[in-house]
Amino acid sequence: MTNAEGGPVPHVIEAVRWSPTGDAVRIIDQRRLPGEYVERDLRTLDEVRDAIATLAVRGAPAVGVAGARGLVASLVVYAGESTARFAERMRAHAATIRATRPTAVNLPWAIDRMLERAERERARDPRALVAALREEATAILEEDRAMCRRIGEHGEALIAERSRVLTHCNAGALATGGIGTALAPVYVAAERGRAVAVYADETRPLLQGSRLTAWELARAGIPVTVLTDGMAASLMRERGVDLCIVGADRIAANGDTANKIGTYALAVVARHHGVPFYVAAPSSTIDHAAPNGEAIVIEQRGAEEVRRGFGTLTAPEDVAVYNPAFDVTPAALISGFVTDRGIVRPPFDFRGWNAA
Amino acid sequence: MTNAEGGPVPHVIEAVRWSPTGDAVRIIDQRRLPGEYVERDLRTLDEVRDAIATLAVRGAPAVGVAGARGLVASLVVYAGESTARFAERMRAHAATIRATRPTAVNLPWAIDRMLERAERERARDPRALVAALREEATAILEEDRAMCRRIGEHGEALIAERSRVLTHCNAGALATGGIGTALAPVYVAAERGRAVAVYADETRPLLQGSRLTAWELARAGIPVTVLTDGMAASLMRERGVDLCIVGADRIAANGDTANKIGTYALAVVARHHGVPFYVAAPSSTIDHAAPNGEAIVIEQRGAEEVRRGFGTLTAPEDVAVYNPAFDVTPAALISGFVTDRGIVRPPFDFRGWNAA
Repeated sequence: MTNAEGGPVPHVIEAVRWSPTGDAVRIIDQRRLPGEYVERDLRTLDEVRDAIATLAVRGAPAVGVAGARGLVASLVVYAGESTARFAERMRAHAATIRATRPTAVNLPWAIDRMLERAERERARDPRALVAALREEATAILEEDRAMCRRIGEHGEALIAERSRVLTHCNAGALATGGIGTALAPVYVAAERGRAVAVYADETRPLLQGSRLTAWELARAGIPVTVLTDGMAASLMRERGVDLCIVGADRIAANGDTANKIGTYALAVVARHHGVPFYVAAPSSTIDHAAPNGEAIVIEQRGAEEVRRGFGTLTAPEDVAVYNPAFDVTPAALISGFVTDRGIVRPPFDFRGWNAA
Repeated sequence: MTNAEGGPVPHVIEAVRWSPTGDAVRIIDQRRLPGEYVERDLRTLDEVRDAIATLAVRGAPAVGVAGARGLVASLVVYAGESTARFAERMRAHAATIRATRPTAVNLPWAIDRMLERAERERARDPRALVAALREEATAILEEDRAMCRRIGEHGEALIAERSRVLTHCNAGALATGGIGTALAPVYVAAERGRAVAVYADETRPLLQGSRLTAWELARAGIPVTVLTDGMAASLMRERGVDLCIVGADRIAANGDTANKIGTYALAVVARHHGVPFYVAAPSSTIDHAAPNGEAIVIEQRGAEEVRRGFGTLTAPEDVAVYNPAFDVTPAALISGFVTDRGIVRPPFDFRGWNAA
């Protein structure tokens, strides 16, 4: 496959899809990256729950898709049961999967949508119901793919020929059903033949940048360079960066944005160097219950993630650790939002967006 | 031991000292920290060279002291040789130790000083020469200790009761013959009964902050909390930081300062939050050959430090890595220098300092 200029089109991985036989969810086991590429087929309820709980599949959109598809996969073998018995089993499986990671919004949203579909089809026998649920799970995946694609199409205008893009954490194909959010503009620009180089913050403590972002970009043939989080300011000064693009976990109505810890520091150093700083996210990430960043509660995580990175003791055993999972970047530091509905420039006001 | 208020005085470790018998250099093996506390006695030339080369002893002042003392230790058993033979051996040992880490200025400086002393004493027999060299090495250690103490005495005025101090890398007792440079004001403030809490950036890629700074502060009974480098901005916003103090590898005549990578990013986020940012260093760190930061050459280090930082592969095997060992913080971001001669405020002009 080639693009308009005859260059190769990036081969973007798919984090979640149906197995060839259609009876299982096939995921890339992200716990094994970047050392090993292992695909796993999830069929049983235990397999689905464990894959989500242990972060074999991660990234809020990808987890939503995997949960919905996993729910169907776990029900296939029970399609011979009575309608009543099957309905009961379905609700039990749905409740189990829904509770696996209760804080991300996409998983409960996807499972609830599956149950609503089942409700509409409740007169049908289990085999027909499984087929309908498979259709719904596929629709969830397709919509997620389309959302990523739209973010990419809108955002690629930001990426001129020979752009140097700096990103943080992983908001790429591995985190979604499609080509990602923060990385979608990069993939679309590459597809259109533009040379683009990505710098990936390693993203301590869990290293999603070096383990996942670097891996998926390298696999897609896009030049990528890893740096530690503290090197971003030096990079901007010594080599130059054209723009930063990051994802978002939650966006307040005024544009204040919660994202992986380290994002706020990156926004501050970008502003200091006059580097534009963009947040790429679906409009569903906007939280209308939060008028501004003050209303966003930040999860504090365990000390061991920092003290014992990857099995080695890297700090005194009992030393105190500050380990928030996210930070809040004030809207004033954000140059624009790249959403599925277009690029939004300041002043930001997202009141009413979810109603549309 | 108690301080003026009757509280315990911090027990600061000694990174380099004589062994009790006086024939070996005793160091704390910093490769084993924070997991294990192991002291090692260095007697032979190979032991001295290996300890410096493999970073068992590190930190420019500590390496200078260890090199000088190691030179004497390695010569003790040869004191029965002829004067001519001994002189030849001394020059060979000195050349070997001097070349172990050629980029740091303190090691060649200390070894050259030892050779100058030997030159002054060249009429004496080997036993007397060894005694003179031991005296010189002890003087180098004592002067380093006094320098740290003076930095601490001058800097402690910056540390009010209940101060929260953020530091980067390790510029503490483990890096010097005394109580450190950046940490010296903290130790002196604690000695004087003031409550002070330290936050330590873990300092990727080599984690000197979490491995060494956290360890020596905890051992001294000073409350310390580790954070990843990308969390500093979040910390300033969420909990508040009263001041930052870091060390320096090289200071240009205009005050631009090279220090461990990540220092510049920290200075930028400190400025954004209005947090004072101090550099603590001996006046010997000033490089008059460098009028400003542009003249300071930054060492680029190997990719494996970032890709395989914890013994585990944390990035794709062949991915490109940006890994400068240092960055340069412009003088404009520095609130002041804490030196052995006092606190220096802007505008900075260090021309002529080394002449004094």
